[in-house]
Amino acid sequence: MADIKYEIIENVGTISESSKGWTKELNLISWNDREAKYDLRDWAPEHEKMAKGITLTKEELKALRDILNDMDL
Amino acid sequence: MADIKYEIIENVGTISESSKGWTKELNLISWNDREAKYDLRDWAPEHEKMAKGITLTKEELKALRDILNDMDL
Repeated sequence: MADIKYEIIENVGTISESSKGWTKELNLISWNDREAKYDLRDWAPEHEKMAKGITLTKEELKALRDILNDMDL
Repeated sequence: MADIKYEIIENVGTISESSKGWTKELNLISWNDREAKYDLRDWAPEHEKMAKGITLTKEELKALRDILNDMDL
């Protein structure tokens, strides 16, 4: 990810942690100085490395929240 | 994705749709005939192509739901 600049604006929450210390996190991240987006992905300890993930808008988070609240989890 | 076999067991919900018809979806997917996992990613129309995404366990979905319900969305 050498060519991508990013700044974690807010660590919204940690969803899980693996035995090797990787964490699945919801963050608010600004990529390449652009407007910050919500981001769901796995991170190595200390945010040293990142795995694939997805970005979501606030509207998408709302829709996801509503779907999750409708599920029998 | 030629080497990856998958089966969409359940389309749980659609989170958004882009102007080009790509949809961000939460699905229950079995990858390579293994136990199905929840999966959040973008799909081209008719599920013809998939973008990067993440898989989540049921426990992770619960944690994500709780985080989203705590947010001021």
